[in-house]
Amino acid sequence: MLSAIDFWFDFSSPYGYLAAEQIDALAARHGREVRWHAILLGPLFKVVGTAPLTTLPVKGDYAAHDFARTARLLGIPFALPNQFPVATQVAARAFYLIQDESSGQAKQFARLAYRAYFAEGRDITDGSVVMDLVAKAGAGASAIEPQLGSEAIKQRVRHEVDSALRAGVFGSPFFKVDGEPFWGNDRLPHLEEWLRRGGW
Amino acid sequence: MLSAIDFWFDFSSPYGYLAAEQIDALAARHGREVRWHAILLGPLFKVVGTAPLTTLPVKGDYAAHDFARTARLLGIPFALPNQFPVATQVAARAFYLIQDESSGQAKQFARLAYRAYFAEGRDITDGSVVMDLVAKAGAGASAIEPQLGSEAIKQRVRHEVDSALRAGVFGSPFFKVDGEPFWGNDRLPHLEEWLRRGGW
Repeated sequence: MLSAIDFWFDFSSPYGYLAAEQIDALAARHGREVRWHAILLGPLFKVVGTAPLTTLPVKGDYAAHDFARTARLLGIPFALPNQFPVATQVAARAFYLIQDESSGQAKQFARLAYRAYFAEGRDITDGSVVMDLVAKAGAGASAIEPQLGSEAIKQRVRHEVDSALRAGVFGSPFFKVDGEPFWGNDRLPHLEEWLRRGGW
Repeated sequence: MLSAIDFWFDFSSPYGYLAAEQIDALAARHGREVRWHAILLGPLFKVVGTAPLTTLPVKGDYAAHDFARTARLLGIPFALPNQFPVATQVAARAFYLIQDESSGQAKQFARLAYRAYFAEGRDITDGSVVMDLVAKAGAGASAIEPQLGSEAIKQRVRHEVDSALRAGVFGSPFFKVDGEPFWGNDRLPHLEEWLRRGGW
């Protein structure tokens, strides 16, 4: 059996959103599954010594332009939120709580959360918005809501971020397949070529 | 007549090298000319507040891996030089001195200088190496050599870097066509699609 593709993303990452809309279909074309990992870019950026793209002079304006232009090319609805970037701990916690029950529902939640933030202008830092999306994804909201603020799930998210760091992840989206790392939505064509050829 | 594509590059930029090997053929497919502009990333990085990719923890290792992997995919010879990045003032000065006589020879010099540095491991900070490449490009070496250290050409390079900054350039390679900016070798597919469709 072919090994899965690992896919790391932060819910506040525009290119992560664009990749989330594409990765499962790409993987399926090559008989691969995708393991999704919600991460928090803040701690990763500290290690790498970088900052959110849009906070950088000159480069930030270009990045905002490129997010929208790339989304239009892909036919994916996108509008840079007024509040950007935002802290995505609550969404990440919900993601893992759902994933423990169903990875399919967790992916569906992630896609809904991304669209809520980047296409519908909703505030995904708000627990009630997150719980609405949990319900929409078909997950058991009543079991999840009381756990959203628990120490256990906070530690779980920290553990997932640490695992990502150990795997060499430093941005979003980030992919790994058969040990090979790919960073960025713009590397999806390389990732697909890698799957097609088995490397080069 | 269709307007030209502007192409900014630093001689120490691996992705600039990969783009330099492709941009004229890409432009020709769409009836466009390319205006090449040698720049120095140092002053640009100061404005943006960033640093050479390979100096960043974690991200640097990935970048070195991605340079070589992208080059292999494109069939372009590449080996990350032992001295990297390097100061590219001398090569940039030679480029503009040649360009004042012939833009075709200047492009040929740029391609030779990139290959010398990234494929042949030669030291392009060395004036004698640069002069060898000037001669190989068919330019008038005897007229250029005495000007390589002149105040006039130093000012010219500073002026070109300032012009790039005013045009919103913050990295290498950087392209602009019909007012639309594209940053990175990985945006060449978008640039080409833009030419094909006239935007989207």
